[in-house]
Amino acid sequence: MNEQLDHDSVDHAMQPDDTPELRALYKGFEAESLIPLWTQLGDLMPIHPKSKAVPHVWKWSNLLPLAEKSGELVPVGRGGERRALGLANPGLAPNAYVTPTMWAAIQYLGPRETAPEHRHSQNAFRFVVEGEGVWTVVNGDPVRMSRGDLLLTPGWNFHGHHNDTDKPMAWIDGLDIPFSQQMDVGFFEFGSDRVTDYATPNFSRGERLWCHPGLRPLSQLQNTVSSPIGAYRWEFTDRALTEQLLLEDEGQPATVAQGHAAIRYVNPTTGNDVMPTIRCEFHRLRAGVETAPRQEVGSSVFQVFEGKGSVVLNGVTTPLETGDMFVVPSWVKWSLQAESQFDLFRFSDAPIMEALSFMRTKVEGQS
Amino acid sequence: MNEQLDHDSVDHAMQPDDTPELRALYKGFEAESLIPLWTQLGDLMPIHPKSKAVPHVWKWSNLLPLAEKSGELVPVGRGGERRALGLANPGLAPNAYVTPTMWAAIQYLGPRETAPEHRHSQNAFRFVVEGEGVWTVVNGDPVRMSRGDLLLTPGWNFHGHHNDTDKPMAWIDGLDIPFSQQMDVGFFEFGSDRVTDYATPNFSRGERLWCHPGLRPLSQLQNTVSSPIGAYRWEFTDRALTEQLLLEDEGQPATVAQGHAAIRYVNPTTGNDVMPTIRCEFHRLRAGVETAPRQEVGSSVFQVFEGKGSVVLNGVTTPLETGDMFVVPSWVKWSLQAESQFDLFRFSDAPIMEALSFMRTKVEGQS
Amino acid sequence: MNEQLDHDSVDHAMQPDDTPELRALYKGFEAESLIPLWTQLGDLMPIHPKSKAVPHVWKWSNLLPLAEKSGELVPVGRGGERRALGLANPGLAPNAYVTPTMWAAIQYLGPRETAPEHRHSQNAFRFVVEGEGVWTVVNGDPVRMSRGDLLLTPGWNFHGHHNDTDKPMAWIDGLDIPFSQQMDVGFFEFGSDRVTDYATPNFSRGERLWCHPGLRPLSQLQNTVSSPIGAYRWEFTDRALTEQLLLEDEGQPATVAQGHAAIRYVNPTTGNDVMPTIRCEFHRLRAGVETAPRQEVGSSVFQVFEGKGSVVLNGVTTPLETGDMFVVPSWVKWSLQAESQFDLFRFSDAPIMEALSFMRTKVEGQS
Amino acid sequence: MNEQLDHDSVDHAMQPDDTPELRALYKGFEAESLIPLWTQLGDLMPIHPKSKAVPHVWKWSNLLPLAEKSGELVPVGRGGERRALGLANPGLAPNAYVTPTMWAAIQYLGPRETAPEHRHSQNAFRFVVEGEGVWTVVNGDPVRMSRGDLLLTPGWNFHGHHNDTDKPMAWIDGLDIPFSQQMDVGFFEFGSDRVTDYATPNFSRGERLWCHPGLRPLSQLQNTVSSPIGAYRWEFTDRALTEQLLLEDEGQPATVAQGHAAIRYVNPTTGNDVMPTIRCEFHRLRAGVETAPRQEVGSSVFQVFEGKGSVVLNGVTTPLETGDMFVVPSWVKWSLQAESQFDLFRFSDAPIMEALSFMRTKVEGQS
Repeated sequence: MNEQLDHDSVDHAMQPDDTPELRALYKGFEAESLIPLWTQLGDLMPIHPKSKAVPHVWKWSNLLPLAEKSGELVPVGRGGERRALGLANPGLAPNAYVTPTMWAAIQYLGPRETAPEHRHSQNAFRFVVEGEGVWTVVNGDPVRMSRGDLLLTPGWNFHGHHNDTDKPMAWIDGLDIPFSQQMDVGFFEFGSDRVTDYATPNFSRGERLWCHPGLRPLSQLQNTVSSPIGAYRWEFTDRALTEQLLLEDEGQPATVAQGHAAIRYVNPTTGNDVMPTIRCEFHRLRAGVETAPRQEVGSSVFQVFEGKGSVVLNGVTTPLETGDMFVVPSWVKWSLQAESQFDLFRFSDAPIMEALSFMRTKVEGQS
Repeated sequence: MNEQLDHDSVDHAMQPDDTPELRALYKGFEAESLIPLWTQLGDLMPIHPKSKAVPHVWKWSNLLPLAEKSGELVPVGRGGERRALGLANPGLAPNAYVTPTMWAAIQYLGPRETAPEHRHSQNAFRFVVEGEGVWTVVNGDPVRMSRGDLLLTPGWNFHGHHNDTDKPMAWIDGLDIPFSQQMDVGFFEFGSDRVTDYATPNFSRGERLWCHPGLRPLSQLQNTVSSPIGAYRWEFTDRALTEQLLLEDEGQPATVAQGHAAIRYVNPTTGNDVMPTIRCEFHRLRAGVETAPRQEVGSSVFQVFEGKGSVVLNGVTTPLETGDMFVVPSWVKWSLQAESQFDLFRFSDAPIMEALSFMRTKVEGQS
Repeated sequence: MNEQLDHDSVDHAMQPDDTPELRALYKGFEAESLIPLWTQLGDLMPIHPKSKAVPHVWKWSNLLPLAEKSGELVPVGRGGERRALGLANPGLAPNAYVTPTMWAAIQYLGPRETAPEHRHSQNAFRFVVEGEGVWTVVNGDPVRMSRGDLLLTPGWNFHGHHNDTDKPMAWIDGLDIPFSQQMDVGFFEFGSDRVTDYATPNFSRGERLWCHPGLRPLSQLQNTVSSPIGAYRWEFTDRALTEQLLLEDEGQPATVAQGHAAIRYVNPTTGNDVMPTIRCEFHRLRAGVETAPRQEVGSSVFQVFEGKGSVVLNGVTTPLETGDMFVVPSWVKWSLQAESQFDLFRFSDAPIMEALSFMRTKVEGQS
Repeated sequence: MNEQLDHDSVDHAMQPDDTPELRALYKGFEAESLIPLWTQLGDLMPIHPKSKAVPHVWKWSNLLPLAEKSGELVPVGRGGERRALGLANPGLAPNAYVTPTMWAAIQYLGPRETAPEHRHSQNAFRFVVEGEGVWTVVNGDPVRMSRGDLLLTPGWNFHGHHNDTDKPMAWIDGLDIPFSQQMDVGFFEFGSDRVTDYATPNFSRGERLWCHPGLRPLSQLQNTVSSPIGAYRWEFTDRALTEQLLLEDEGQPATVAQGHAAIRYVNPTTGNDVMPTIRCEFHRLRAGVETAPRQEVGSSVFQVFEGKGSVVLNGVTTPLETGDMFVVPSWVKWSLQAESQFDLFRFSDAPIMEALSFMRTKVEGQS
């Protein structure tokens, strides 16, 4: 066994001599839509994941003004469907993919605007880093959007958004568009040109049914692939993280590492991830904490929710503040450093990797 | 096929003639520890479940004074372990079994008393119909007991109780003692003669980690057979039921039947029952509601938490009020009638029946 | 903690003084169908499983003549249903239970006789230690019974038997009758007074569909709770065990312990046990092998299929030969000793214990 | 709702006016690595899957000579690793992808040649349409390759091939290379430059342990993600299909449709697909049978094993004979027509689509 052996050098050594006969053979391949493995192996089957996607940071201070300007110049409505700016990973151009599996965007809705209803196979969520006043209507159930909330619109649920106020609002969208596009799994259907219910309740029907810890409605015993909870409220997330740190102070096991509280958003019918393709988590670091450098199969996107700190991606440190987003491609080494208490929302394609048994994790200092 | 055919008459018809030779044969069976099937079939394999357990109602107004009197006469401590009075199904005498699978008892703890710690394979819970002031310490985690709370002590967790006040407190215990005794699965171990932590926090560590709806601690990704939540608080149960009835008022699907709200207590790591052998539920009927008569495989015990109404068991109606308990053996027809808003706690062995594929349900008016 | 502490001595120490007041209280309990825990704890919650069932051996040389005599004196037909002699554990008298969960019997069918069709919730199997000539018809599918075969009739499948020859045949039946009787889960329905198909094919339709290793009919993608294979043929079992020992000879991991080959019969739709309540296995020991003494939660029954050896049950050694049966109650220490190559069929209630998380195993010399 | 609405026309209608300001905004997007959704929606989220992959047929009569010629000109050995010609879907150029998820190739090994050992995360199989004489060595276990056999080398198992004869041999390889490349999940490690065992047994150790229908080695109770069976032999496949058609002749339910027998190769530890990402099946049509046109999410590749017939892909009929291969991209309508008895091997990415809940199927004439 020779794990260090370099594909390229080996490939080179093995290539057959370039003769007229070989050229004729290669022509024959081309005519028959065949490509030999031996000319491509290093690219097709790398020693470890070498993503075309690159680590990248987007500054909220740049994103938001562009979204606002779009609000002036670009209408929202049927056809374009959403005023959303996709974060395009520079390594994946010309596709608007933040990672090979995921789409991330800043979406912007002006005062009193409506983004019309539609549904699609793609799983989607919204996370609200600031602002309020918009309701997302999911299959007729209006869900309030407020700071720190995670909202779900799992595959094939009709959904639209409307702004009930005189102020604009921006948030981030996450979807599995790149995965569904490359895998050819997507269906799409237009719904109402308006939203089907303009009510503005504080709590959606899904929350009222499901957000009682450990209690399952007897009318809802069928498990669902995606979570029936439309909105995971900041109030609960914040409290869960606060309690973890307090328990740590009391010497109890509760945090994922010293000074590092974290929760995963889950489907209460199964305890598993909220949607089949997307994992959502929230992390809080105490001031001064640094996480152990990690490499993971699959890709993640983070958004800073509050506090100051930095991310180290493949050895490059970038300072971060509220709203900043960054992407961690597969097997890229990453760690976080907290200057103040540092809160970050994270989403990833880990459920795909785990369901198909491709997940691996390497943590510096662990075997 | 002849479903109506009566076993007894058929058995009778088939018994061989009583000859000296047959008697000699039967003697031979006895000597070899053999019993012929043909003399016992109707009993061994009935047309439908015919439990030796009988429907029965216990009045809280009788239970509580006997528990109080026990408080005067019987000490609590190492050896007897608990001052608990088991509800003994009259059909299962001389065993202290409320059903063939389950034990139910009223437990009583005097002012400043301690019930010492122990652990056992048997799964257990407490439900508090009235009172407060006792803490159950589960593996060192003190859990407050208050009105309307469900507390879990799943199999093989050390647990004890202590009364922090100058007033006595009574509650009900439910365990799978009969199942474990008949199936020979039980282990038992004494722990501390006191409880290991006399602190009296409002919320247990398990609650602080787990009672945030839809949020899973990242440090707790391993599923557990039983729920990690030590106490399911009345505040949440009441709110969940209230919301179901409000949603029903708004024309939304939420209740299990018209005017009948209900929740199942579940393990948040899986969405399944709180323990492998015991299902716990809470039901609320609007005043005037009658449930459809049902028959189910497996047995249930109910306790009235609040309100007035009655239960119909095999056609016999019994009025009920707060604290009253009743047992529904397997395949006995039962229904509830609510005079006022009527709140009931229920536990059953349904997880056993479902895990082993024996569950059947028959509801009057449904096919 | 004090694991060695004896319940009885402790109980004794704790019993309250026998006063007139206490007697009056106990009378009050009786009147209200209550039984105090403190008088019964040691029995209800033992330190470890102490089964009423006892280890016991039945000699085939005694069983078979009694079955044959029954064939002369007792008719088989509707009502009695089966000419079956249940092995009655001496500790469980007067019930015809071989263990607290399981029934085992020798069944006998005379030349040209038919045991009529019926179905029941109880799961059943037949194992053939010798003989041939009978077909079991399961939901209309005739299944040949031959030496060494395991036949399944899972719960609620119609089944009858008919002897197509001029010779009698005997075999053993295993069912979960005690479990279903105590748990009140059983339904029963008579079917045809004859069997519905007197054809005598070599292979049943279930085998023809399913007995191709690793191949699943595309028309059968729905998993089933019990195995769809009606008969597990001796030819396959023997070959599997032979290969394990050959692989062991080649230095490959294949046996469960040195000189001890074993297979579990499984449901090909899931890889799990053949029925929800009964595990079936076949064990082969090389001559001279002794198994490590084991204790397990739950109960087992063995039948010697071929060879000579002995069983050690709680330290008592009993020699065994073809057809002999023995029972191992919960937590009884057992081991096997092989004089010649020693083949044994085993069935147990382990699926119940595992599904409900009560399984524990202790093997001498392992921690 | 307006399912027919065309994305393109709608998009057109909604595009904002092309003004200098808009151009400046779009420049800003570019500078910040942003791409607006409204310019790309139709492509990113189509009404139904519109794969870049196209239906295509490869003729064995063209493939084999090119493979043979490669045998003359191209060495096999460390670096190039395999003399394999990948079927490159014309719609996915320049990638050597037969579908967006799967790789298919014809591999060729000359007399006495060895393809050296390596392992990779990618799941792989071989199917043998003709020939014999090669052994695949999987983790040291030599597996004979013969006509009609399916061989597995699941992810991260070392494997190499060697030809034990004086004749060349060709077969097809299937892997999830495109999926793993796009998702960035692949690891690769070189092993021995030779194979680690040149023995040529008829049956591999995995077969000897596992290929006994319904029998599980007691030493192998841990479920595995991929099948432990190294080779699924043609003898068994043929017999299973033959029995299905015989059962159909007898009026029994066995085939997937009239005249259409089919099996799925499964993992015996679970009853599920052989590997997490690849489904393998074998189909047999009686002469004259036509299958109902189907559309499925996900992609399939077929190889004709024996017989004559044709495939209809999006309305285009292509005649087929032994060895011919064709690809069905996602949501492309396909059906088969059998001139003679028609045997086809099929593999697909259906386990991916099902695990992530994207599977949909539409069959003509069914709702």
